[in-house]
Amino acid sequence: MTGIEDYTRQYGLVRKIDAYGYLDYLKAHPEAPRKHGKIVLVTADTPLKASRGEGKTTTTIALIDALRARGIDATAVLRQPSMGITAAGSKGGASGGGKASLTHPELIDWGLCGEMAAIEAAQNLLVSFAEKAVDEGKLDTVLVPRVSEVPSRSLRKIVVDAGKNNVAERVVLTPTCELMQIVVLSRSLDEIAERVAAMIAGTKDGKPVKFGEFIDLWRITGILGDAVKPALTETVNGSPVYVHGGPFANVSIGIPTLVSVELACALHDVVIVEAGYGADAGAQKWLDIACREYGAQWPSAAVVVTRATTWRDDPALQWRYPFHVQRLEGLNIPTFPLINLWSGEDDQIDSLRATAKDLKFRDPIIGNLFRDGGAALAPQLDAFVDVLGVGDGKAPDSPDSHKGMPLIDDIRWVAGNAYGVPAERVVKRDGFDESLAAAEQLCADAGFSLNDLALVAVKSPATMTDNDSAPADERTVTLKKVEVHAGAGLVQVNLTTSLTTPMPKIV
Amino acid sequence: MTGIEDYTRQYGLVRKIDAYGYLDYLKAHPEAPRKHGKIVLVTADTPLKASRGEGKTTTTIALIDALRARGIDATAVLRQPSMGITAAGSKGGASGGGKASLTHPELIDWGLCGEMAAIEAAQNLLVSFAEKAVDEGKLDTVLVPRVSEVPSRSLRKIVVDAGKNNVAERVVLTPTCELMQIVVLSRSLDEIAERVAAMIAGTKDGKPVKFGEFIDLWRITGILGDAVKPALTETVNGSPVYVHGGPFANVSIGIPTLVSVELACALHDVVIVEAGYGADAGAQKWLDIACREYGAQWPSAAVVVTRATTWRDDPALQWRYPFHVQRLEGLNIPTFPLINLWSGEDDQIDSLRATAKDLKFRDPIIGNLFRDGGAALAPQLDAFVDVLGVGDGKAPDSPDSHKGMPLIDDIRWVAGNAYGVPAERVVKRDGFDESLAAAEQLCADAGFSLNDLALVAVKSPATMTDNDSAPADERTVTLKKVEVHAGAGLVQVNLTTSLTTPMPKIV
Repeated sequence: MTGIEDYTRQYGLVRKIDAYGYLDYLKAHPEAPRKHGKIVLVTADTPLKASRGEGKTTTTIALIDALRARGIDATAVLRQPSMGITAAGSKGGASGGGKASLTHPELIDWGLCGEMAAIEAAQNLLVSFAEKAVDEGKLDTVLVPRVSEVPSRSLRKIVVDAGKNNVAERVVLTPTCELMQIVVLSRSLDEIAERVAAMIAGTKDGKPVKFGEFIDLWRITGILGDAVKPALTETVNGSPVYVHGGPFANVSIGIPTLVSVELACALHDVVIVEAGYGADAGAQKWLDIACREYGAQWPSAAVVVTRATTWRDDPALQWRYPFHVQRLEGLNIPTFPLINLWSGEDDQIDSLRATAKDLKFRDPIIGNLFRDGGAALAPQLDAFVDVLGVGDGKAPDSPDSHKGMPLIDDIRWVAGNAYGVPAERVVKRDGFDESLAAAEQLCADAGFSLNDLALVAVKSPATMTDNDSAPADERTVTLKKVEVHAGAGLVQVNLTTSLTTPMPKIV
Repeated sequence: MTGIEDYTRQYGLVRKIDAYGYLDYLKAHPEAPRKHGKIVLVTADTPLKASRGEGKTTTTIALIDALRARGIDATAVLRQPSMGITAAGSKGGASGGGKASLTHPELIDWGLCGEMAAIEAAQNLLVSFAEKAVDEGKLDTVLVPRVSEVPSRSLRKIVVDAGKNNVAERVVLTPTCELMQIVVLSRSLDEIAERVAAMIAGTKDGKPVKFGEFIDLWRITGILGDAVKPALTETVNGSPVYVHGGPFANVSIGIPTLVSVELACALHDVVIVEAGYGADAGAQKWLDIACREYGAQWPSAAVVVTRATTWRDDPALQWRYPFHVQRLEGLNIPTFPLINLWSGEDDQIDSLRATAKDLKFRDPIIGNLFRDGGAALAPQLDAFVDVLGVGDGKAPDSPDSHKGMPLIDDIRWVAGNAYGVPAERVVKRDGFDESLAAAEQLCADAGFSLNDLALVAVKSPATMTDNDSAPADERTVTLKKVEVHAGAGLVQVNLTTSLTTPMPKIV
């Protein structure tokens, strides 16, 4: 009998799975056994700064260890962190910590088996092909950026062909590029090829030219062969963990690949999906892009992680954690507050519970997950397990698509729902209308409507509004510019007055 | 009992070997069984153009298949080709062809398991750390280039931090960078770390500053974890083939890693080492850098591959093939001409043999290796096998090191020996003396002598001299500039008037 092992290969200390092949097999064989796993979204409070995580991965790992200790077949799907940022020392990786760790964190944190690098090479090759198209007169302006996995502030603005044509360019971090978005959102190599073909390479006399018009698509998909396979690793307690997709839910989508989640749902009863940064970033993107627009499964529960300090220490920012918890509950997602204690914070448990009660939260789950791992959680999960309906084969419906909604209305909708800023305080910076009009024209010239693309809010990871510390009725969201990723089916809109660069300085 | 299998792991369709670990084990256990394989250098005629190979990899594969068919435990060590160049369609990969192929050429040609990408990320991270050092006032000028696996002509000269500091930079192909050279020449991760520490990051007030003065070395070696492991794959006939190291013996060293060759010698009786481009490129570098300066084993035989057309069609270039064959014989390496026939050339065999006889070559080995694979060679290998002394445990001595020889004398020595141009026709372009003096000063300031570095001739792959078509007594070699790679222990000198860019245009 055919099984998942036929689609699994060892790659050093991890395994990789041909998810496309396995999911095709299941589709073609309705009689083949499979599970119908429930999705749990693990998200977080908005962090105080980009480099300080609340412990989403640590929580995710502790949670599956705890669920498995209770006899539930749970797994997690993680995104790879940015190897460049991790190696540079700017951020701590994304493989948990202490007793809530992966067996081989170094693999996950330091490049896995070249997945991100393959996407980097493929995206850069697209730029080289576009450059050749310029030489051949097929293009006069290239719109796709080069990428680098390694951060470097001086790559934000560069001039190439210096001394000759002096072409202004920018370089973005690999995980933020359109090709990564395509890998995250596609369900087959054919779909990847179609989406690459639909990418707008640039313009000729102001009119869009797509890659499909001048490149051999197999040259791009060939590079991606191994990059499109989810990796399977495990926690130090032996729980299975899938890793696939890239980070940065602030400046891109930052969610695991759809196929890695679907694969996990076919193999396990509970699938924890970790989405990047705070609930205003990764969770908003999982819900409004993956579920609402790309057919991913709506969560059966959510866990919103915070640290006691993040939640409570800054009075001006205390509103954010309850806002996230209540917003997700408002979407009919049973939402569990989880406070990830640090060393010396055990004596705060009672006061944290009291605050949660005042806020009418569900009973919070509280533990020092680095120190105690899943053991800290297992006894607190009764209510959580109850809402999941493990094994009932049902999946919640996703809300209706926003396809066709005017982009500006969609932005206002996100600002209102995910950031708590009403339409009248969504303001446009000089040049935004021109940027929007240019994007609309580009799409129209390419034969589709801008309003059919899914909105990606590009923002600072540490703020939802122009100033989260301002009083509620003074908070604004500033719209800066619009960028079309036609191949991925996305339109990116830069929000807030904070710096939203996809190419950080190393710190 | 410990064996090679304890150091071997599956990576998808190939295996990777912890060569450092295994070679350490052999050193620590003199009683452990091992072989003392003989090295055969497979090199080639100088190609008519860079993108046209003579069939070195095809020959290498056919040769080991033929030797194994004769009962000899032969293997080959190949370098990875440039994935970017291959994917772009500029060159055909490096995994043989037809009946002389690898089982999974797509893996070798398209990025293997991220080895090159890891080197790319690590070298680019070094540049980012140097940039941070500039911000912190530890450096004022960065000397290490960024790298890209993907070719793009407009990256030859770029300006970064555009609009602010406008720093002029260049980007080179990943396989040509100093970190790749370090990986090729090092025998342990510790040695890699030491060599990275010795790399000159840049200057501060004109004085050299090494990476060891300001970075955490583990951040670089951490990225390289998997990249330093030779891959083991096989030919379509099941012969083992190791792949490790990068291409470009024209603008860099372009030889397999020393550890991959030593590993193969410990496991097999005959080890074919493929070195890049013509005998004036890869073979010169294997002999004069790897063997003479870095302790690699001197070849027990050489095979110089040509195509009938390359050898004979251009009267002005007919001198090159006999020059290579006779030069290698002159180094006491039994050297076998091998003519790789293409379709429709079988009727040239007699005339090729006659020409070889006139030139006093050893009996040439002739076959259509694409069509017939190793079967074309097996019956012709008696004399070849005789000279190898398979299993006698002896290895030829390498000639004396040139360490300490003034660089200019070493260049003249290479020009005379490897290109046939006497010292008086080695000419200096304007600026060469200044470049040499600056390099000497940089090394002196860093505490060592330029003359202790091994010379890397940087040249066009398709020429040895400024004009190979000129009469013998008019051929010159022009010296252009000097570049120090202190960590790798190398000094690069750009030769000839041809373009010698480490960043090609895609064609």
